[in-house]
Amino acid sequence: MINPPQEPAYFRPSPPLLAELAEQVLARCDAAAAFTEEPGRITRTFCSPSMAELHAALRGWMQQAGMTCRVDAAGNLFGRLQTPHSYGKTLLIGSHLDSVPNAGRYDGVLGVMLGLALAEAVNQIGWCLPFDIEVVGFSEEEGVRYGVPFIGSRALVGDCDEALLQRKDGNGISVAEALRQFGCDPAQICSSELSPDKYFAYLEPHIEQGPVLESKNVPLGVVTAIAGQTRAAIHVVGSAGHAGTVPMALRRDALAAAAEWISHVERVGQQTPGLIATVGTIEVSPGAGNVIPGEARLRLDIRHTDDVVRMTAVEELQHLGRSLAVRRRVAFEFAVEHEHTAVTMDRQATDFLQQSIAQAHHLPIELPSGAGHDAAVMARRWPTAMLFIRCRGGLSHHPAESVTLEDVTAALSIMWHFLDIWRVKAIKE
Amino acid sequence: MINPPQEPAYFRPSPPLLAELAEQVLARCDAAAAFTEEPGRITRTFCSPSMAELHAALRGWMQQAGMTCRVDAAGNLFGRLQTPHSYGKTLLIGSHLDSVPNAGRYDGVLGVMLGLALAEAVNQIGWCLPFDIEVVGFSEEEGVRYGVPFIGSRALVGDCDEALLQRKDGNGISVAEALRQFGCDPAQICSSELSPDKYFAYLEPHIEQGPVLESKNVPLGVVTAIAGQTRAAIHVVGSAGHAGTVPMALRRDALAAAAEWISHVERVGQQTPGLIATVGTIEVSPGAGNVIPGEARLRLDIRHTDDVVRMTAVEELQHLGRSLAVRRRVAFEFAVEHEHTAVTMDRQATDFLQQSIAQAHHLPIELPSGAGHDAAVMARRWPTAMLFIRCRGGLSHHPAESVTLEDVTAALSIMWHFLDIWRVKAIKE
Repeated sequence: MINPPQEPAYFRPSPPLLAELAEQVLARCDAAAAFTEEPGRITRTFCSPSMAELHAALRGWMQQAGMTCRVDAAGNLFGRLQTPHSYGKTLLIGSHLDSVPNAGRYDGVLGVMLGLALAEAVNQIGWCLPFDIEVVGFSEEEGVRYGVPFIGSRALVGDCDEALLQRKDGNGISVAEALRQFGCDPAQICSSELSPDKYFAYLEPHIEQGPVLESKNVPLGVVTAIAGQTRAAIHVVGSAGHAGTVPMALRRDALAAAAEWISHVERVGQQTPGLIATVGTIEVSPGAGNVIPGEARLRLDIRHTDDVVRMTAVEELQHLGRSLAVRRRVAFEFAVEHEHTAVTMDRQATDFLQQSIAQAHHLPIELPSGAGHDAAVMARRWPTAMLFIRCRGGLSHHPAESVTLEDVTAALSIMWHFLDIWRVKAIKE
Repeated sequence: MINPPQEPAYFRPSPPLLAELAEQVLARCDAAAAFTEEPGRITRTFCSPSMAELHAALRGWMQQAGMTCRVDAAGNLFGRLQTPHSYGKTLLIGSHLDSVPNAGRYDGVLGVMLGLALAEAVNQIGWCLPFDIEVVGFSEEEGVRYGVPFIGSRALVGDCDEALLQRKDGNGISVAEALRQFGCDPAQICSSELSPDKYFAYLEPHIEQGPVLESKNVPLGVVTAIAGQTRAAIHVVGSAGHAGTVPMALRRDALAAAAEWISHVERVGQQTPGLIATVGTIEVSPGAGNVIPGEARLRLDIRHTDDVVRMTAVEELQHLGRSLAVRRRVAFEFAVEHEHTAVTMDRQATDFLQQSIAQAHHLPIELPSGAGHDAAVMARRWPTAMLFIRCRGGLSHHPAESVTLEDVTAALSIMWHFLDIWRVKAIKE
């Protein structure tokens, strides 16, 4: 075994090695895509047979990389690369292994494969770090099978209860039963909880799922925070009527009212830096070409990394809705259906990721994540950082999800620098 | 028989007689409501068994009123009150006997019952008019069974062809077959056509189907014209995306674009006197709360009594749609699906109706009809006037359709004055 070196450059993997590892990452994402519940489409849900097949393949690759494997009671797969000088410290890297129905091959899986490739490189080169590396493949993040997301990471922070275990899927199979069928003991799910001092940091590499990096022409970005979100159902009630006989002045058109409000949503989104606001659904009734809409039902989704900004915008939109409702003599009901607060990434871990990007001669781009991630759960307990990898067209949750070999190579290079910065820090302390 | 009198006041029906006739009109509308294809709902389509039952009842009432009855080859029921001094002139009064599914009891039927009541009063009092009165109950106006409206009145103006006769309903039964089952000879449908000089005018009393009379607090209104109409399908194509990851500036939100256009539709409607413009349906896809809408499909319905005004508005709305589409980087497709021109009511007949209202000491209100009526077809061949009767809440095509006894009494009184004005005119000529 080699002592922790003073000159890290010596241990930097060569560009050909990085490219070779990146190729392997992509090949393993391809291989993982074959483990699916639906022929011809990628669909891999919590504790499914296809998940068991993926675990078997990953265990093989992890063992090849010198790692020891375990599956916890929540179905999370861990591979640990131990070093003799770790002093009990561990860096956790990973993402989730489940997918949405008809998914792409990179959302989640890419982060696990990148963690594995990094550990494999460390092992191959024989880099003796002052901490262990553990790679985690979370069992559940998308919320597809049970309608609740983050089951895997929630188990690690002790956020699983009996109600979750008794929750049933579309076939009446409970979470507990699914875990048993997967070979896990649901009674032991509390044992999945990990103490805060077990890891000094969690890193999640993940495709961006948005178009920001592509629009800025950079391969990678550092996540500053995972946005808080408000989801609301809006119900506008006016008065239906014959489209040919009710003069404009006598109308109480629910769709015209809704349209005015949708324009407010868009304007508030555009005028508030960092805010994103979406009306994703609208249904009107009676819903005939020659009938004035009497009712409209809409769904609002609004997100920001600053909860105060988000809540102020929600307040403003409710106020605008109520105002136009009075003027238009319609009813405007606004019901919050879901709300969660923003989660800021760890300052130090995020700085280290920024420095890694700078060391790799890339532009250090910071951006928020509008989508939820395991990182938001993990950040409750451990210093957490997220690395976004550019995806073509900003597309995710779609078979056409795509990343380039160059971008994956860049991600690996940056993760290597990230390891090195923590190594230097550990040695100094 | 009494000679045409010089003093019409003598023949005015007393207020109690008018009220009694109006009560009978409402009772007959109630009785007609029982002739339906659907238990518990009023649905009476072209040549249905329930239409045959209504014909049987109407024939009885017409004969009681001294009228002779016939059904033409298009299934229209006629009752004629002949006078010895008619000089071959006839005034035609009527409306349609079919209904929409789950209809009210007055749309169409009320006009026929009013015509019948007027004829009955003339007969009872023994008023010897210088023209005959014929009451028509059209077989088809709503377009429910065959998807094309006005079959009854179109037959009278010679606008029925083989294509119409071969058109099939949802059960594969052709118009010709339906007529045969109803006891009519479809081969003789051309014989239903009536020569222009057979009638000197057509009067259609009808519920307003809108809220204008109610909002002005008057029982009756005179129709100036039946509006022309454009119906169009609009397709907006932007780009779907994750509601959490695509910044506002990078969006091509089809619903936000549609909302802006809907506001234009409303504004153009409000700012153009007499124009009514409605977006009655909207559907977005993918249609999920957390997905930016990539497509929106809308239906526009726009009407005006001046075709140039309507077409100018359609042009303007297309231009506004194309402009916002360029700015928003979305596609805006506008396809006209249906278009018909406005029909002006006969100036003299309409003036006579106005004078009748003034003589009955009501406020003479003129208004356009946004909905289509048999009067629009009849106006192609005969001087035509339409009398609107206030309906509660402007409601029609709905079980809650409602008129008051007072308003029906007022309508009868005005129709009596209308007869008298034509009588005086005929005597002077």
